[in-house]
Amino acid sequence: MLFKQLFDRETSTYTYLLADQQTQEAILVDPVLEQVERDLKLLTELGLSLRYSLETHIHADHVTGTAKLLEMTGCLGIVPDKAKASCADQHIKDGEILKLASITIKAIATPGHTDSHNAYLVNQDRVLTGDALFIRGCGRTDFQSGDAGILFDSVTQRLFSLPDDTLVYPGHDYRGHTVSTIGEEKRWNPRFVGRDRSNFIEFMASLDLPEPKKIMEAVPANERCGNLLFTR
Amino acid sequence: MLFKQLFDRETSTYTYLLADQQTQEAILVDPVLEQVERDLKLLTELGLSLRYSLETHIHADHVTGTAKLLEMTGCLGIVPDKAKASCADQHIKDGEILKLASITIKAIATPGHTDSHNAYLVNQDRVLTGDALFIRGCGRTDFQSGDAGILFDSVTQRLFSLPDDTLVYPGHDYRGHTVSTIGEEKRWNPRFVGRDRSNFIEFMASLDLPEPKKIMEAVPANERCGNLLFTR
Repeated sequence: MLFKQLFDRETSTYTYLLADQQTQEAILVDPVLEQVERDLKLLTELGLSLRYSLETHIHADHVTGTAKLLEMTGCLGIVPDKAKASCADQHIKDGEILKLASITIKAIATPGHTDSHNAYLVNQDRVLTGDALFIRGCGRTDFQSGDAGILFDSVTQRLFSLPDDTLVYPGHDYRGHTVSTIGEEKRWNPRFVGRDRSNFIEFMASLDLPEPKKIMEAVPANERCGNLLFTR
Repeated sequence: MLFKQLFDRETSTYTYLLADQQTQEAILVDPVLEQVERDLKLLTELGLSLRYSLETHIHADHVTGTAKLLEMTGCLGIVPDKAKASCADQHIKDGEILKLASITIKAIATPGHTDSHNAYLVNQDRVLTGDALFIRGCGRTDFQSGDAGILFDSVTQRLFSLPDDTLVYPGHDYRGHTVSTIGEEKRWNPRFVGRDRSNFIEFMASLDLPEPKKIMEAVPANERCGNLLFTR
């Protein structure tokens, strides 16, 4: 499997490119609208056909590149079940498996940052954690039907039950980390270490974060898969 | 081997952490002064002892973290031979091998961005290319005794002669790419594809880039391994 981590500097978002090197079929996870040209160029250079644009959740901090990718490549857009995205070709729910040649992606429902959110376990050895789990952090829970208690359960019961050596690839990083492991996060993530559920809820409520700059634009746009111009 | 790519957002610099998971000994390549606390924290969390701080070259765009790491950890500072760095504990020259438990690092002299520059081939399967070769780009050659013709030779004769599937981990990236391969760069790097030596020299001379913001501070500091306060 070809696996590339791509970064959008403005929003500190990671996009992931996964491809089977025999069939040359590819999946993009959490593409960013402003980076679609970069990503399409990379697909062309590598001789890849994009089959799926897969979202971990409806983002509030950036507009997804999915609608543009659908238009440019004819790929299918896939979002978590229950996610309000009128444009999605498919929904994927907890435990469901998306297979593309040698690539096996298993959805792990991990709500809490938003009410509909999946992490994706890729070929058993790495997990794309979206905004549920960051490296030494986690997504916020104060908008888009976020719920700190539910996020605590998602991370501690669903993600932390994966094998310790599972690689963790997050949806964002703000400090220059690129990869971690489940073992590292269980041991060192300050949001979870030494906290029980109620303490975590209290801590998340105390953060008092400013609204994401793009939320008023991003959420409605992402409910249309990032299509700024028309509903599909 | 544990391998982590770390990013300094302000200067778009990649630092690499390499460690043997049995002996818990580690090497940092191209550390950034402002990120030393992050890097030390990571070493502590992972239970690693830093043995070497290794430079690809004397940087002009950021101050190295080496002096601070030497002071905080007692590691050794290693720079390419001929690099003017009064503080270095060791120099490493073309073909020389640095071994640390399961990690084998072979220096590949790749001057041109600066007159003394090494790429490092790590365990045969990945090369840290410093500022010689970027993903679809290369380092500039208009200061610090840079020489476009020499850089062309370094990249096309030394790096492009590695196996096509060798992973390329650059010293910087400005577009959100994290990793490439020698095969990709031979085929798609616009600085080299379709150019001969003289055409490359002409192209590099035409770039007319502004001076790096930190050059007046960074180069003299880096000649002291990033020690801003005293010479060693």
